[in-house]
Amino acid sequence: MDNRNNIDFDGIGRFFEEHDCINILTHKSPDGDTLGAGFGLCAYLRAMGKKANVLNSDGFPERYSFMYEGYYDMEFEEECVIAVDIADTALLGASLLRYAEPAAIDLCIDHHISNKFYAKQSYVDGSASAACLILYRIFKHLGRPISDIIAKCLYTGIATDTGCFKYENTVPAAHIAAAELMQYNIDFANVNRKMFDIKSRARLKAEMISTESMEYFYEGRCAMIIMTTAAMESYGIEPAEFEGISAIPLTVLGVDIGITVRQRHEKVFKLSVRTTDKLDASAFCRQFGGGGHIRAAGCEINGTLEEVRQTVIEAVGRLLGMKV
Amino acid sequence: MDNRNNIDFDGIGRFFEEHDCINILTHKSPDGDTLGAGFGLCAYLRAMGKKANVLNSDGFPERYSFMYEGYYDMEFEEECVIAVDIADTALLGASLLRYAEPAAIDLCIDHHISNKFYAKQSYVDGSASAACLILYRIFKHLGRPISDIIAKCLYTGIATDTGCFKYENTVPAAHIAAAELMQYNIDFANVNRKMFDIKSRARLKAEMISTESMEYFYEGRCAMIIMTTAAMESYGIEPAEFEGISAIPLTVLGVDIGITVRQRHEKVFKLSVRTTDKLDASAFCRQFGGGGHIRAAGCEINGTLEEVRQTVIEAVGRLLGMKV
Repeated sequence: MDNRNNIDFDGIGRFFEEHDCINILTHKSPDGDTLGAGFGLCAYLRAMGKKANVLNSDGFPERYSFMYEGYYDMEFEEECVIAVDIADTALLGASLLRYAEPAAIDLCIDHHISNKFYAKQSYVDGSASAACLILYRIFKHLGRPISDIIAKCLYTGIATDTGCFKYENTVPAAHIAAAELMQYNIDFANVNRKMFDIKSRARLKAEMISTESMEYFYEGRCAMIIMTTAAMESYGIEPAEFEGISAIPLTVLGVDIGITVRQRHEKVFKLSVRTTDKLDASAFCRQFGGGGHIRAAGCEINGTLEEVRQTVIEAVGRLLGMKV
Repeated sequence: MDNRNNIDFDGIGRFFEEHDCINILTHKSPDGDTLGAGFGLCAYLRAMGKKANVLNSDGFPERYSFMYEGYYDMEFEEECVIAVDIADTALLGASLLRYAEPAAIDLCIDHHISNKFYAKQSYVDGSASAACLILYRIFKHLGRPISDIIAKCLYTGIATDTGCFKYENTVPAAHIAAAELMQYNIDFANVNRKMFDIKSRARLKAEMISTESMEYFYEGRCAMIIMTTAAMESYGIEPAEFEGISAIPLTVLGVDIGITVRQRHEKVFKLSVRTTDKLDASAFCRQFGGGGHIRAAGCEINGTLEEVRQTVIEAVGRLLGMKV
C-alpha cells in the first residue's frame, strides 16, 4: 500500500455518501480494467441513488459493450470527479484535458505503482492486479449488495489486466475475487471469449502479415518483426490493427528476446521489446533512451530502415554475447 | 458427484496407506491435467515412503518437463494400479493395453462425466474442472503437507484444463485452488507461458498457413479452413502441427460456426466444428454420423475435395437458414 494514500475504504464510503452528482474518468485508449472500474463504480453509485456518468476521451469501444448495456448519460451539474485506473493526468486524453488542471480530480482509485498522486484524495495499491480488484474490496468493505452488472464489470477488469489470470501480476486475491464474482450471473466464459479469443478479420490479417515477415537471429534466440508504413499501407490495414503484434515474437519456442519495429515517420522507428526472465528488456531499451518494465519495454531509434535494423541486430548480439 | 462412485476421500487415503508399489496410469496423447495428476500423485506417494511410477503410452512430452524434473523410474514389483484423468481404457494407448483387461486397474480418479467405471474402485466428479482439482481436494482432506512440485503439477492441470480459467468448465473451486497453490514456489506465470503462449516455429507456420487459407461464407457467419494432405506436405510441416488449428475460425469477430476440414485419405475428410452459443455443433455433425459437445464436435465426410466443400457449405446454409 502506498503511504502517500490519504483516504481509506471508510473514507471512500463517506465520499460516496456525501456526493450526489459524480463524473467518473477512465483513461484514454480504454481497456477492460478502466472501463470495468468506471461502469462498475457508476452502477454502484446509481444503485445508491446518486447521479453518475462515465467519461472517456476516446469513447467506449464496441467490444466492451457488454459492460455498458443499459448505460445512458445522466443529466446533472458535476459536483465531484473520481478517476479510476489512471496513473497520470497525461492519460486522460484530449477531450478530458480540462481535468488535468491541479486539484481538478477529487478522488483517484488506482493500482499503478507509478501513480502521480494528482488527485485531492488518492487510494493507490500497486500490489493489486487491477483497479477492479481494489473496487471489489471497497464494495465488499462497504457492504452494499453488488448487482450482476457490477460483478461482470469487476470480473472483466480483473481478467483483462491479468491476461485471464496468466501473468505474474495475478495475486491470490484476484483468484478469490473471481471465484466470488463468477457466482453472479455474469457468463464469464463469454466475457473471456470476447476479451481474449475474438479478433477482427483485419487484426487477424495484421497478425498473419507480421508473423510471416518475422526473422530469426542468434540461433533463434531473437525474433524480430519489422513493419514499415509502406508495408502496412500496402495491405490496406489500419496501423492501429498492428498495435497488438508486439507479443508475437516472444511466443516462439526458444526465443528470449522478441522485438517489434514499427515505422512512425520516414526515419523514425519505434521498438517494442519483450524478453523472457533471462534478459532485461528495460535495460536494452535504456541504451536508446527508452525504458519500461523488465520484461516489456520500448524505445525509438532514428535512421533509415537498414540502419535501424543493423543497430538493433548488433545491440542484441552484445546483449546475448553472440555474433550474427 | 457420480453415484456409481464406490470409494470416498477417506477410502482413498486408506488405499494409499495400504499399498507400497504403485503404478500410476495417464492417458495417451498426454495433456497438462493427466500428467499433472500423474506426477503430482507420484510425488505425494513417494513423500509417503511409497514406491510409485508414472506410466504413459506415448512418453512424456518435453513441454511438460517442468513437471518431471527430478523424476526417475523406480524399480519395484507392481502391487496396484491407479488411473488418473482416464475416462475409458480405450485412452490407455498401445503400450498400456495390458491394463485394458477387466479389473486390471484398482483405482480410478477422474473428472470426466463420460467415465466408464472400468476400475475396481472409482472416484469420479464430473463437476470438477480437472482431475488435478479432485486430487488437490483429496490431498487437503488427507492433511499431509504438499511440496512445491506437487503444487506446481496440480496448478498446471487445473490451468490447462480450464484454458487458464477462461472456459465455462472453470468452477469457483478451481480459482480457490489456484489462489492457494500459487502461494507455493511454483512460478505459475512461467508455467502459463509454457502452456498457453509458446509455440514451435512449425506450429506458428501451420497456423499462419491455415489462417491465410480461411474462407468466409454467409455474411461472415461461417469461416472455414480446408487443409489437403498435398497442401500440408508442400509446406514441409508435419500434419500433427495442424492439430491445433481447429480453434482458429471461431476466433474471428462475427463468426458463429467455424469449420476446419482436414484431408485424411484421398476421398476422406475430417471436420472439426466449433460454434458460439447460437448454434449446436454436435447436431450439425450428427447429420454426417459424427458427434461431440454442443460447442465443439466432429465428423468425417467422404468425397472429392470439391464435393465435400459443397456439402459443408450447403449444410451450413440450412443451419443458418441462409443462401450462399
